[in-house]
Amino acid sequence: MTQDSLQELTLRLRQFASERDWDRFHSPKNLAMALTGEAGELAAEFQWLTESESQELDPERLIRVQQEAADVLLYLIRLSDKLRFDLLEVANQKIELNARKYPADQVRGSARKYTEY
Amino acid sequence: MTQDSLQELTLRLRQFASERDWDRFHSPKNLAMALTGEAGELAAEFQWLTESESQELDPERLIRVQQEAADVLLYLIRLSDKLRFDLLEVANQKIELNARKYPADQVRGSARKYTEY
Amino acid sequence: MTQDSLQELTLRLRQFASERDWDRFHSPKNLAMALTGEAGELAAEFQWLTESESQELDPERLIRVQQEAADVLLYLIRLSDKLRFDLLEVANQKIELNARKYPADQVRGSARKYTEY
Amino acid sequence: MTQDSLQELTLRLRQFASERDWDRFHSPKNLAMALTGEAGELAAEFQWLTESESQELDPERLIRVQQEAADVLLYLIRLSDKLRFDLLEVANQKIELNARKYPADQVRGSARKYTEY
Repeated sequence: MTQDSLQELTLRLRQFASERDWDRFHSPKNLAMALTGEAGELAAEFQWLTESESQELDPERLIRVQQEAADVLLYLIRLSDKLRFDLLEVANQKIELNARKYPADQVRGSARKYTEY
Repeated sequence: MTQDSLQELTLRLRQFASERDWDRFHSPKNLAMALTGEAGELAAEFQWLTESESQELDPERLIRVQQEAADVLLYLIRLSDKLRFDLLEVANQKIELNARKYPADQVRGSARKYTEY
Repeated sequence: MTQDSLQELTLRLRQFASERDWDRFHSPKNLAMALTGEAGELAAEFQWLTESESQELDPERLIRVQQEAADVLLYLIRLSDKLRFDLLEVANQKIELNARKYPADQVRGSARKYTEY
Repeated sequence: MTQDSLQELTLRLRQFASERDWDRFHSPKNLAMALTGEAGELAAEFQWLTESESQELDPERLIRVQQEAADVLLYLIRLSDKLRFDLLEVANQKIELNARKYPADQVRGSARKYTEY
């Protein structure tokens, strides 16, 4: 369904920025900076929770987390649009890369040292 | 094409973590923390560039930017999977919310104070 | 002892940047961006550790943590120098502000909801 | 003057946390995570400004920037206290390290590629 695809979101955001004359603010540098701000807000939702608590969020916090996650995605989409690359394609390539870097049969059982991408 | 959809990526990452016994590391708290790390690496690629330079990256930097952007997306997908929400759905809702918050006809020409999501 | 004071560090960094002709890169915007990069690297050191493990770091990780923490401080000092404010003074003011915002006798025992600055 | 030293701030924050029974939240992992949140808020103040605008902040924004910078410093101090290292000492060591890594006479005039710490 096209409405929910990343490509459709890309076009919606492009139009959104254009209608507001915000394109001039959306240099890749600025978008990357805005993304760190949203990532920081996302992290802030979890900072005093235990790992266990983070798995069962209360409804208010879950909504905030969803909104911060959405903000990160929106800036990521804008960035990929501005730099003209396909976000899903590079994400799939990165998984291939990680699969070769961390072979499942060697990593199992000694996961700790391999777990940083 | 399903291979490139967010949903397909979600399943690939779920399998990837499961095969490596990494699921126990992937609490929402830890994933949000890992995401800020990747967002920071993405920002670092742009920190000394002018806005203008950020629009025309050299090939090596562009590849690094793509890989960091991919990492952010992968952690975002893992987080949404662990917290059981639909990333595209919340992103579309956030755009609707922003459209009401920043009406195009009121925002045009006085963009500065409205440009923070 | 002046060698270890924040003010002495400020002067050392000012000279360091000047000798290398790096001052032109050090706009407050760029310094804030660089700081998020270092903060992200600092966070990355802890992302897969449990809270308990984070209290007893192995020597190699402790050294990396110290270096990342130092990087954050150095950019913070550069930023305060460029914007001409006294970092220690604003930090002391912020503690006063927090003390009024979170009175100890009201906060004890119901700490959770008060713990975000 | 002791009131304004980092060491005095360390003690004030230690007492502040103790009086509120917040010490149990302040694992190094959580403090590093909280620091990224504050760093993100700091970055957000600059994200749509040009580099030039970032050098001449309006008074309201300057106050917010000072407060976010203070928050970053406070978490940095808490972290160094919890992990028992001297923030100023490691910062001075890092400057020495950077001085050897980026010799002034080699870096001048070709600053770009050396400017990442």
